[in-house]
Amino acid sequence: MNQQLALGIDIGGTNTVFGVVDRRGNLLGEGSMSTRGYEEVTRYIDALYRKVHPLIEKVGGLDQIRGVGVGAPNGNFYHGTIEFAPNLPWKGVIPLANLIREQFSMQAVITNDANAAAIGEMTYGAARGMKDFIMITLGTGLGSGIVANGQLIYGHDGFAGELGHIIVEDEGRICGCGRYGCLETYASATGVMRTMEELLKKKKTDSILRKLPPDQLNSKAICDAAIQGDKLALEAVEFTAKILGKALANAIAFTAPEAIILFGGLTKAGDLLLNPTRKYMDRNVLKIWSGKVKLMRSELKESHAAILGASALVWEMKD
Amino acid sequence: MNQQLALGIDIGGTNTVFGVVDRRGNLLGEGSMSTRGYEEVTRYIDALYRKVHPLIEKVGGLDQIRGVGVGAPNGNFYHGTIEFAPNLPWKGVIPLANLIREQFSMQAVITNDANAAAIGEMTYGAARGMKDFIMITLGTGLGSGIVANGQLIYGHDGFAGELGHIIVEDEGRICGCGRYGCLETYASATGVMRTMEELLKKKKTDSILRKLPPDQLNSKAICDAAIQGDKLALEAVEFTAKILGKALANAIAFTAPEAIILFGGLTKAGDLLLNPTRKYMDRNVLKIWSGKVKLMRSELKESHAAILGASALVWEMKD
Repeated sequence: MNQQLALGIDIGGTNTVFGVVDRRGNLLGEGSMSTRGYEEVTRYIDALYRKVHPLIEKVGGLDQIRGVGVGAPNGNFYHGTIEFAPNLPWKGVIPLANLIREQFSMQAVITNDANAAAIGEMTYGAARGMKDFIMITLGTGLGSGIVANGQLIYGHDGFAGELGHIIVEDEGRICGCGRYGCLETYASATGVMRTMEELLKKKKTDSILRKLPPDQLNSKAICDAAIQGDKLALEAVEFTAKILGKALANAIAFTAPEAIILFGGLTKAGDLLLNPTRKYMDRNVLKIWSGKVKLMRSELKESHAAILGASALVWEMKD
Repeated sequence: MNQQLALGIDIGGTNTVFGVVDRRGNLLGEGSMSTRGYEEVTRYIDALYRKVHPLIEKVGGLDQIRGVGVGAPNGNFYHGTIEFAPNLPWKGVIPLANLIREQFSMQAVITNDANAAAIGEMTYGAARGMKDFIMITLGTGLGSGIVANGQLIYGHDGFAGELGHIIVEDEGRICGCGRYGCLETYASATGVMRTMEELLKKKKTDSILRKLPPDQLNSKAICDAAIQGDKLALEAVEFTAKILGKALANAIAFTAPEAIILFGGLTKAGDLLLNPTRKYMDRNVLKIWSGKVKLMRSELKESHAAILGASALVWEMKD
């Protein structure tokens, strides 16, 4: 058996994307399908297999593939399950790794999307060669994957790395988790929108965003406006960077990472977000780390990152 | 060679304690000396060797001993050094592991005191069998050692686990590190004293602590008063527990530990501190962990814990 290839599957709330990847991160083929429309998860797995099968044939059949890595919201590495994922159609605890193992006749491993991103970055991206780093995904929420001693930290129950839910503001913004002041209510695509809405209400400063219909006021529009120099959008980005930078300063005190790597839609603001985040991070961190911990963007192409991350789990499998 | 014993040395700002320990944590002999009075670290090592040597002979000589584990403030595991320790007489970077290796003709390993406490707890104490836990030492400052996947997290530079220096209050109390609002300015022996002083000034409530001369208002007196039901002392403990509990809730979101273990002088307050800390921890943690992460006291005898912790480093050594 050759087994120099890995199948990566990323299950999102809307779409599922998959691809076959070699050890260097080259995507040899990919595809996608809707995650929705399958009431039973077994139906979904059937459909997924039918979609993926031609791709497996194309790269030379099962013998070429070492295993399947799956990234999914609320994916639990230890149990091989998806547990109570609010954005997926299947409720409760889904034994996803087992279902895939049976349907695909391959070993399968699962973790949540941010952990998969961290392993992808370590295998193919900006964190190659690093043994200690933190991956932060700034999407609808804030996800994180913590790598220490060259290993992803799963914690005693498989759910470690929930930096989106550290409380950064006492009695702050209400969070989807039911508590108040979680980091992701500020530092995420949704967070920056909430900040922008507050600023638009509170201030009279002119802004191109005032002309947008409310349903178009998304994080992309805010990043674009900031890049164009819109003062109020820049203020929203700076505010986001301040809260994120301070939280990252505290995160450094935990695991003393070599780098913190940012990924996801919000990083489209580029240096506009990175520079002030770095400023607040360095200003608030214990002196021994000031100016020493790299803050960088992911080196994985966003359209491929989810597949690459999921596929990279396969190389971490024990034989 | 037998090598079923370990030599543990704990270097404190005032005293150095040492002992020979077997694999089950039995102390076969111990001793102590002053850390002070040696301008040159080599003189200190000489004196230490003269003190320790009879103990080595007593247990059967060098052949019985696998190595030396050293716990010291600012001890760096990777470099085998003590780096810029404010409370030790020797300045700059001290190559302590090498000095001991040469003088004692044994392999030596060093880490900071809180990390040593964590490994001691994992080897001999409350964390036996645990792969994921956080050790918190509540002494003059707040130290911490984080164990994940069964390994202590040292970080990329050897200085991970500085939970005493996560900022919990914007523009809060000034800290020895030069910043403001660090956790240890509240949750430590010094922190509870500062809280008590503030309460005594701010409130008119009667308290047995009002009668104490200022130099006797230490954390022990405050714990004792709280145990006796002194209202203001209880308020100080509750305030400390609130800040500590909230910080621990955030810490859980990082590494999802099975338990958080408290050690040090402040834990003498017992359930008076533990119960409210647990209450605030559970109230502020992400729901999946509420009521699930154990908060417990160290199971090591305080007088022996430093030696046991340092000695336990030896069992972690690679051959």
